[in-house]
Amino acid sequence: MKAAVCYEVGKPLVVEEINLDPPKAGEVKVKIAATAVCHSDIHIFRGDLPQELPIVGGHESAGYIDEIGKGVTGFKKGDPVVVSLLVSCGKCKYCRTGRSHQCTAVWPMDNETRMHNKKGQDLAMLFKTGSFAEYTVVDQSQLVKIPADIPMDRACMLACGVVTGFGAVINRAKVPLMSSCVIIGTGGVGLNAVQGAAISGANPIIAVDIADKKLKAAKTFGATHLVNASRTDAIKEVQNITGGGADYVFITVGSTAAISQGLEMSGVQGMTVIVGLPKITDSLDMSPLMFIKDERTLTGSYMGSTQLHTEIPKLVDLYKAGILKLDELITARYPLDKINEAIESVEKGEALRNIIVF
Amino acid sequence: MKAAVCYEVGKPLVVEEINLDPPKAGEVKVKIAATAVCHSDIHIFRGDLPQELPIVGGHESAGYIDEIGKGVTGFKKGDPVVVSLLVSCGKCKYCRTGRSHQCTAVWPMDNETRMHNKKGQDLAMLFKTGSFAEYTVVDQSQLVKIPADIPMDRACMLACGVVTGFGAVINRAKVPLMSSCVIIGTGGVGLNAVQGAAISGANPIIAVDIADKKLKAAKTFGATHLVNASRTDAIKEVQNITGGGADYVFITVGSTAAISQGLEMSGVQGMTVIVGLPKITDSLDMSPLMFIKDERTLTGSYMGSTQLHTEIPKLVDLYKAGILKLDELITARYPLDKINEAIESVEKGEALRNIIVF
Repeated sequence: MKAAVCYEVGKPLVVEEINLDPPKAGEVKVKIAATAVCHSDIHIFRGDLPQELPIVGGHESAGYIDEIGKGVTGFKKGDPVVVSLLVSCGKCKYCRTGRSHQCTAVWPMDNETRMHNKKGQDLAMLFKTGSFAEYTVVDQSQLVKIPADIPMDRACMLACGVVTGFGAVINRAKVPLMSSCVIIGTGGVGLNAVQGAAISGANPIIAVDIADKKLKAAKTFGATHLVNASRTDAIKEVQNITGGGADYVFITVGSTAAISQGLEMSGVQGMTVIVGLPKITDSLDMSPLMFIKDERTLTGSYMGSTQLHTEIPKLVDLYKAGILKLDELITARYPLDKINEAIESVEKGEALRNIIVF
Repeated sequence: MKAAVCYEVGKPLVVEEINLDPPKAGEVKVKIAATAVCHSDIHIFRGDLPQELPIVGGHESAGYIDEIGKGVTGFKKGDPVVVSLLVSCGKCKYCRTGRSHQCTAVWPMDNETRMHNKKGQDLAMLFKTGSFAEYTVVDQSQLVKIPADIPMDRACMLACGVVTGFGAVINRAKVPLMSSCVIIGTGGVGLNAVQGAAISGANPIIAVDIADKKLKAAKTFGATHLVNASRTDAIKEVQNITGGGADYVFITVGSTAAISQGLEMSGVQGMTVIVGLPKITDSLDMSPLMFIKDERTLTGSYMGSTQLHTEIPKLVDLYKAGILKLDELITARYPLDKINEAIESVEKGEALRNIIVF
């Protein structure tokens, strides 16, 4: 089967034939139908996050069950599924308290990758998924069955980008009706935070970015105000619109400067939620006075604090009801052979979501 | 009347006769019965917080209504009251949403102090109170009537120290039953956080300090575990006791190092609450990764997020019912003439609360 392999940081991926082990107990082989290109993939390929190489990237996917390992229940060959990076054991304190996204279960248990190149070299699988490949093998807990009538290029985005943005608003911040919200960064994740805020009845919803094209998209997703931070003092602008500071600020760009700005955009008892991953070496430098007198809150949301198995089916329903926008997130579709073009376009900031279709 | 005046940073207070203006419209003159010495007073006297001099300190008080300004309702001469630094207008968005402690109303409206020394020099009134004095004049919103049968030296602590620690747990963090709590610093404020956690049914309640004497007091107030950070790795100790990190950490000492340690003591989705005021020039240096993957939260609590007028009467009831400990907070009582001794003892870390009694 074909896969896109990163052999060296900063170099184009190599699309080549590789070998995939059959699923072991509790595992499932999935025929990948669509995988979105996420900034986290690119962080790995550029060396911004530490990771062993060579590696097969890709973690925002949908596909069809192809083969089932021993002891797997609830799936049969041909079932359409979303494939997520979240493994959950179902038994730990996080899984038992509605926080399965924090489960610390490890996969693969034997610490051996299921992917190998034709020379016999092991290929790491990014985020327990490695879905820039025609097939992958994952733990059964990473899969959520979906209806057959949702297109796979839309469904794949539910695995990461959609839940990360939408869930930060809905699950982590639990934004109440009529709250003021700021979303810094209106790429694939940010737009889902915007629509999460819109569906929650937040008002105003202020989108902040430096690209007019992305801001225009934010309007489509429900933003009431657009602020281009390259042309205006975004902090002052937000303070003006909200009358002193926002109730919620979501930082969907991976930048510590944006986090500091976000805190200043938030008002009394305002909450700033870090959604995008800054470089691992970056540090935040803040005055503790930001927190005490005005009782601001800083927190983070990991994978939108999503509970995959209950939420993804609901998100599919929202999409089918015309409430959740997915079509509008897709900028372009590429075959696996052209994955380097898809990545380049994301890096240039041209794309909301580029999808690899198989 | 007599008052203790700070004329110069770092120098002893001067106890002298001063003049007090009569109350204007909306204001009340109070005969002070007891004022606690709080670390915030000392911050001012030592120059750690910017403030104009000369100044009359003191802001944690109780006394009796002495004279009523025009338009004041609900009080009559002789009523026992707690005197707080919190002014509230009753009309702004904070007052109307149960957050009167965040009211931005200013007092005195005319920006003129009510205190002057015998040479005619204006004396600032610390935190709109200036209650290291036999009498003071404050806005009527700063007063809460209390029953006559609670001793004034206990009641005065309800104005600041008690609500700041207790309220951080009850109002700001809203600690649920069976949560694990850490309280860093077990002075006057920290002990009230400990008893807030105990009354909330938190477990374990881990008190962290470097003074064995204060830790012993924490046990009396409900701590289940005592950690002396000068003799052990407090972060590891907390992680061991809680099985990976605490649900809530309250930082009642004014130190950015303690805030960083607190964050590391908190576990997945744990909340760290800054209660004590660090130096205004100190800055926090943290990795954003502390917030994202484990979804930790950092926030602050100002004056225990207290709603004075509804909460202080309830705290009095809890005290009278034997649930809220106040007697145990008092280390010593001093007359106004000996205020410098009372302050010195607090600075040496010898005292929980020292009270000036009139």
